[in-house]
Amino acid sequence: MITEFDTSLPSIRQVQILIKQTTPAEFKLLTGDVLTGRVLWQDPHCVCIVDENSEQTTVWKQAIAYIKPKT
Amino acid sequence: MITEFDTSLPSIRQVQILIKQTTPAEFKLLTGDVLTGRVLWQDPHCVCIVDENSEQTTVWKQAIAYIKPKT
Amino acid sequence: MITEFDTSLPSIRQVQILIKQTTPAEFKLLTGDVLTGRVLWQDPHCVCIVDENSEQTTVWKQAIAYIKPKT
Amino acid sequence: MITEFDTSLPSIRQVQILIKQTTPAEFKLLTGDVLTGRVLWQDPHCVCIVDENSEQTTVWKQAIAYIKPKT
Amino acid sequence: MITEFDTSLPSIRQVQILIKQTTPAEFKLLTGDVLTGRVLWQDPHCVCIVDENSEQTTVWKQAIAYIKPKT
Amino acid sequence: MITEFDTSLPSIRQVQILIKQTTPAEFKLLTGDVLTGRVLWQDPHCVCIVDENSEQTTVWKQAIAYIKPKT
Repeated sequence: MITEFDTSLPSIRQVQILIKQTTPAEFKLLTGDVLTGRVLWQDPHCVCIVDENSEQTTVWKQAIAYIKPKT
Repeated sequence: MITEFDTSLPSIRQVQILIKQTTPAEFKLLTGDVLTGRVLWQDPHCVCIVDENSEQTTVWKQAIAYIKPKT
Repeated sequence: MITEFDTSLPSIRQVQILIKQTTPAEFKLLTGDVLTGRVLWQDPHCVCIVDENSEQTTVWKQAIAYIKPKT
Repeated sequence: MITEFDTSLPSIRQVQILIKQTTPAEFKLLTGDVLTGRVLWQDPHCVCIVDENSEQTTVWKQAIAYIKPKT
Repeated sequence: MITEFDTSLPSIRQVQILIKQTTPAEFKLLTGDVLTGRVLWQDPHCVCIVDENSEQTTVWKQAIAYIKPKT
Repeated sequence: MITEFDTSLPSIRQVQILIKQTTPAEFKLLTGDVLTGRVLWQDPHCVCIVDENSEQTTVWKQAIAYIKPKT
């Protein structure tokens, strides 16, 4: 599992930027699910997103295949 | 595997809040299973949930894709 | 991988209780397999179960999605 | 990944016994494959098995769901 | 998870070379997805790629099965 | 993830022998893909193989289910 949480790493920073800019992003998971939403917070284990219906989902980082910011 | 169990982390705290508020949540697993229930306890490896029929299931955190609190 | 084996953790204790009480449990694996049996032993890597036909299977913890004690 | 290789652990010992007794075992992998053979050696990462046609396969432990000794 | 980021390792260097040479590569993921693009950056957790339509995707290294540079 | 790279381990040595002997091997991945080729190099994260058409693929060790040397 991901045990580092060095905020100077580009991958951590990128999620921090998504949080600040409230830019929606697409999360493709190892289950095949694609979740879309704004990122509310991240920690070493999870990323919490909120979708258009204001529903929150806490995504386990271990399950993320890729993130695609929507532009 | 998840070896940290820092209760100040948002992801750990969120599960603690689910336990206290007895709010049901939906657990999507890497197997594709979706389990719904109230959280009884968590530790670094597992989350134990109980469903409407009072049946307990111990979910391995390594298998969690996402958690969606039901509101 | 799971490298902790702290017997005070609820998830470790729960399996120890299954061993002592010889209660059968259902193991859902990441492969989709469901194995049912009594737990004979556990260590940090594996859980060994025995089914109704006295056949033993050593399940890798890394492959467990959830455990459901049968009551 | 499995980084411990403590030969006093039951799961490690069980594979050592399979090696000494040249007992064939069934390996179910996360891919769904089932490989059957005698175990030649193990180390922290792998288990090497040989099948009836004397073909060797090095199985990554990370990919093992369960092992079932054939009796 | 991948916690080492030793830039002298061939696998890390190979991605660095892809970045410098702006050579497109094919990324096969554990989800079955195949993503193709130039690599913009890597860190211990992720590789960020940009495709022909200038769309960026941050791929989690944990989800990579293989990389095939296009020549 | 695999963080050890002890060249005295049989699994590491076996891949080193494949490199020296330029023996082709079959790599079954967790995606279900089977890649065949000679091994060019390995490091703690990856194994780089080259196929009959001289195409190189860098396979992530995390994605390997088994290796079968072709004889």
